[in-house]
Amino acid sequence: MKRKLILDVDTGTDDAVAIMLAALHEDLDLIGVTTVNGNAELHYCTDNSLRVLDYIGKPEIPVYAGCPKPLVRNDFPIPRTKNDLTEKIHGKHLPLPETALKAQKQHAVEYLVETYRNATDPITLVPVAPLTNIAAALAVEPKLVDLIPEVVIMGGGHDVGNVTPAAEFNIWADPEAAYAVFNAGFEKLTMVPLDATHKALVTATQCRQFDELGTPAGKAMAACTGHRIGIHDKIQKMDVEHSAPVHDALCIAHLIQPEVITLEECPVDIETQGALTVGRTVVDKNRRGGKPVNCKVAFDANAQLFVDIMMDTFAKNK
Amino acid sequence: MKRKLILDVDTGTDDAVAIMLAALHEDLDLIGVTTVNGNAELHYCTDNSLRVLDYIGKPEIPVYAGCPKPLVRNDFPIPRTKNDLTEKIHGKHLPLPETALKAQKQHAVEYLVETYRNATDPITLVPVAPLTNIAAALAVEPKLVDLIPEVVIMGGGHDVGNVTPAAEFNIWADPEAAYAVFNAGFEKLTMVPLDATHKALVTATQCRQFDELGTPAGKAMAACTGHRIGIHDKIQKMDVEHSAPVHDALCIAHLIQPEVITLEECPVDIETQGALTVGRTVVDKNRRGGKPVNCKVAFDANAQLFVDIMMDTFAKNK
Amino acid sequence: MKRKLILDVDTGTDDAVAIMLAALHEDLDLIGVTTVNGNAELHYCTDNSLRVLDYIGKPEIPVYAGCPKPLVRNDFPIPRTKNDLTEKIHGKHLPLPETALKAQKQHAVEYLVETYRNATDPITLVPVAPLTNIAAALAVEPKLVDLIPEVVIMGGGHDVGNVTPAAEFNIWADPEAAYAVFNAGFEKLTMVPLDATHKALVTATQCRQFDELGTPAGKAMAACTGHRIGIHDKIQKMDVEHSAPVHDALCIAHLIQPEVITLEECPVDIETQGALTVGRTVVDKNRRGGKPVNCKVAFDANAQLFVDIMMDTFAKNK
Amino acid sequence: MKRKLILDVDTGTDDAVAIMLAALHEDLDLIGVTTVNGNAELHYCTDNSLRVLDYIGKPEIPVYAGCPKPLVRNDFPIPRTKNDLTEKIHGKHLPLPETALKAQKQHAVEYLVETYRNATDPITLVPVAPLTNIAAALAVEPKLVDLIPEVVIMGGGHDVGNVTPAAEFNIWADPEAAYAVFNAGFEKLTMVPLDATHKALVTATQCRQFDELGTPAGKAMAACTGHRIGIHDKIQKMDVEHSAPVHDALCIAHLIQPEVITLEECPVDIETQGALTVGRTVVDKNRRGGKPVNCKVAFDANAQLFVDIMMDTFAKNK
Repeated sequence: MKRKLILDVDTGTDDAVAIMLAALHEDLDLIGVTTVNGNAELHYCTDNSLRVLDYIGKPEIPVYAGCPKPLVRNDFPIPRTKNDLTEKIHGKHLPLPETALKAQKQHAVEYLVETYRNATDPITLVPVAPLTNIAAALAVEPKLVDLIPEVVIMGGGHDVGNVTPAAEFNIWADPEAAYAVFNAGFEKLTMVPLDATHKALVTATQCRQFDELGTPAGKAMAACTGHRIGIHDKIQKMDVEHSAPVHDALCIAHLIQPEVITLEECPVDIETQGALTVGRTVVDKNRRGGKPVNCKVAFDANAQLFVDIMMDTFAKNK
Repeated sequence: MKRKLILDVDTGTDDAVAIMLAALHEDLDLIGVTTVNGNAELHYCTDNSLRVLDYIGKPEIPVYAGCPKPLVRNDFPIPRTKNDLTEKIHGKHLPLPETALKAQKQHAVEYLVETYRNATDPITLVPVAPLTNIAAALAVEPKLVDLIPEVVIMGGGHDVGNVTPAAEFNIWADPEAAYAVFNAGFEKLTMVPLDATHKALVTATQCRQFDELGTPAGKAMAACTGHRIGIHDKIQKMDVEHSAPVHDALCIAHLIQPEVITLEECPVDIETQGALTVGRTVVDKNRRGGKPVNCKVAFDANAQLFVDIMMDTFAKNK
Repeated sequence: MKRKLILDVDTGTDDAVAIMLAALHEDLDLIGVTTVNGNAELHYCTDNSLRVLDYIGKPEIPVYAGCPKPLVRNDFPIPRTKNDLTEKIHGKHLPLPETALKAQKQHAVEYLVETYRNATDPITLVPVAPLTNIAAALAVEPKLVDLIPEVVIMGGGHDVGNVTPAAEFNIWADPEAAYAVFNAGFEKLTMVPLDATHKALVTATQCRQFDELGTPAGKAMAACTGHRIGIHDKIQKMDVEHSAPVHDALCIAHLIQPEVITLEECPVDIETQGALTVGRTVVDKNRRGGKPVNCKVAFDANAQLFVDIMMDTFAKNK
Repeated sequence: MKRKLILDVDTGTDDAVAIMLAALHEDLDLIGVTTVNGNAELHYCTDNSLRVLDYIGKPEIPVYAGCPKPLVRNDFPIPRTKNDLTEKIHGKHLPLPETALKAQKQHAVEYLVETYRNATDPITLVPVAPLTNIAAALAVEPKLVDLIPEVVIMGGGHDVGNVTPAAEFNIWADPEAAYAVFNAGFEKLTMVPLDATHKALVTATQCRQFDELGTPAGKAMAACTGHRIGIHDKIQKMDVEHSAPVHDALCIAHLIQPEVITLEECPVDIETQGALTVGRTVVDKNRRGGKPVNCKVAFDANAQLFVDIMMDTFAKNK
């Protein structure tokens, strides 16, 4: 049986790749996509998600627009207008054709609550965006902690941050939502932070190979990731020349082949109050905090396997 | 036409009086009661609300149970188990007979969202409890800011706090929810803080008069408020001997006779991060903060008028 | 015997008045003036203090320059350059003639430590500025807690702030220093906040009377306070028309006639971490915090008595 | 010419080793030792420092007692009495004979200020303890920033903390002091965090070799470090079996042979406000914070070289 999942995204160039991998891989059944304010304003994220699904021939996968602002704050800790890094990396619109597809009328949070309440099969939840929708759904229905069998989050950073020295964007963009989700008590919670995604780089050379696949997914992968590499070359050179991380897709690759990341059990908590550290994922490697293990954390990744999984999948997108 | 309202409560001895006044006054149409974690754990608050409605002969007013914990935190800033003041004041169960009434199946947040989405008449929202339900509803449906024509909140304290030196219980118990609600952009937002409720004291003598009304509401008022006076005499003597505030009911009295409180327009914000001030309502009397006016704040109240309104109303509860 | 005191200032239009009153009143013996970064940069505060002493014929009172920045931070919570209110109220230079007087070579903190270590008579300490010097002195010599018999601070605000909605300038400008001083354990600590100083207003009419005294102190009082009234009329109208508080001088008046302010014992703590409340004096009127009383707080003042004390004193400055 | 240095300690088992290495190595001239509240209460730290100097035959090196509590707080972020880890690691008294030596009368902060004001040769400052003394000295004499040519600090942790998940003891124990020191503007500031000291482990086998040297320093090294290994085996196993870091001594080894640690230039700031991260050294590896480089940070160390330096030095302590 295919593994069912819901993907929560703020599409976004790497979310686009995550959507394609989840929608196209034969072992996965992407039953719905929920969108949230993040890499771009909500309406762009929703439209971008629809563009991806249309372009790769999966218009039947429903998209639900969710929360247009963080759970508590009216804006990010540094307001969107004062920090243009995110827009540089993602742009507003993906480099994909416009679409006539529309989002569903139901709100993403209501979709999540209703879907999990009524689920008969296990449905993995994969949030690769600020955790606003998930925290709001938990507020409305605390039983989601038991109804969601597994959560795989792209977010956090232990060795480095990307939006501040201490924090990664998805957690920082809604630290209170992240706090609520990480402390909710999920039995299976996996965090895929920058520590892993920065090891799963895609190179410009591989981008050309994706493009040469000639499939829609291959070409979209090349366009989206090519844009990412161009920006990273300018503002944050990675360890491999002309390369970029494709963070969100690594979570999906992990559902397909778990060994693509290396996991370690850790207590993880979220700083919501620090002057310099707001949005930091506080990973307690040495058990100094007394908090029980609540999470598996990915500290490493297999870049070649990651690219192979995507190459195989995107090649079949006829 | 009667004024429609929804009352959000954490019943609680003073919430009980607010429910009675809202349910019984001829100018008001209490269309629903929503409950939230606060003065007691959620299930007590829900059961207590049902007891009140049963006792005063209003079993048809539906009660919806809401959020069992704060929006972001897993407990209050000082955990419930380490601060027994609230339980001393309210107990777990109200001093009213048990009831066979049950809460509705629908979650309070979903009830709020659905009701306001479908409303044809204006429905005033009166939260007299931690603002968790309201903030969660706003997260699911930001349009509530426009759909709710008026919000009257019991909460906050400028001159004194009650749970800490700087903060009042309802705001402190879920500061992030309060932050979200006060910053949501409601056009009509009224805050009734301790500054007003501590001026609207009910005395032990008046309690006896309520009891002598002989009506269920009169007797319930006497029992609930008598308990409050007993506790206040022990732990926080008020300005008038043998008296207590009945905070939540003052909001309802204001809907009946606006002049029972004296209002001043002020910018109000909520401190979520202070070591000593978490949950403080920061009222900018002198316009030092640059934030626009978002609130009317009650700094004074007419105790006699308050008691008269309740005495008249509870007398008619045959 | 005259009462000895050291005045810690950031002169400043109201500090100037405090210096004059302390230097000229026959019951007081102002043995030294220490200056600190605050209303203006340190070198202006020092120069202004010297101008005052020169102008009123007290060049023998030594001035010691102290800390040029807050104890911990490199600037105020809102940097000086982004908040021009303070400069508007005080200017850089006082409206008094230049002086050839120079500050002592010894650092203010070293002067404080040495003076109190060697003191044979009691010396009251009157800080009417950010508490940096005092906190630094306590760090070097914790025994100052026992060596300083009495501290009278101008600072704080309970009902209103002046620099933010929640905080008064002197405390806010160095909240960590204030935290250290208020929690040091002084046996006699008096706080004179805005609640009192806003009741001790000096009017434009009274300013003319000061000017008509014809003495240097009278004329300086008129010039400094006239400037204050002009600014207050523009940016923060007081309860009495064409008036301004002269905060710092009220502490000195209290040394002369204690009843010029009304004091209440309270636990007082300092918020150093709040997003909205940093620098707030958290006054626990209702004993909700469990902290013992550490302070007497002035909540009211007698404006007429205050003006009379100054008028009498400044009249004698031949 | 020998390199002059002042060592600021909270002796402490690893401080003891740092003192011995600094006092005994032929290239170094330890002109003074200052003590501060930290691993133990101040009087223990002072007495322990004197015991070390007496035991190794260096009674002429003066010891100055400094600040008995943090700069701002009255205790550590978690009070000493609620966190017995530090005492477990260090005990109160070192396992060395009692001494008749006494500390100097001058306060450590006054000694630092006076010594640097009057210095004709460069004197390196090596704080391997909470930074209270250094921050207090900077408050009294900001010119120390120019007068101290080089500062080498043991403190901080990037990958792991030791006292909390996010923070190392020396920084956490007085975060405001650390903030002041790291932001003071020293031209040469080196930070030796846990990332390096956890690579410079001393094993039980090496301890026996130190003991077999038969010199006082060798025997003291074996006693102090043996105690450390015993505790680490129980509560925090290191990467090498039966081993422990000897943090503070690594700073001294670096003065002798710089290459014992590997340094990287980084902007470093100190979190003073986080709920989970107070006292964290925020190291901006990827330049995400806009703060200029203010520090060289040691991320690696050469354990063998470290042990060789100590073995050579302690062998000569006849």
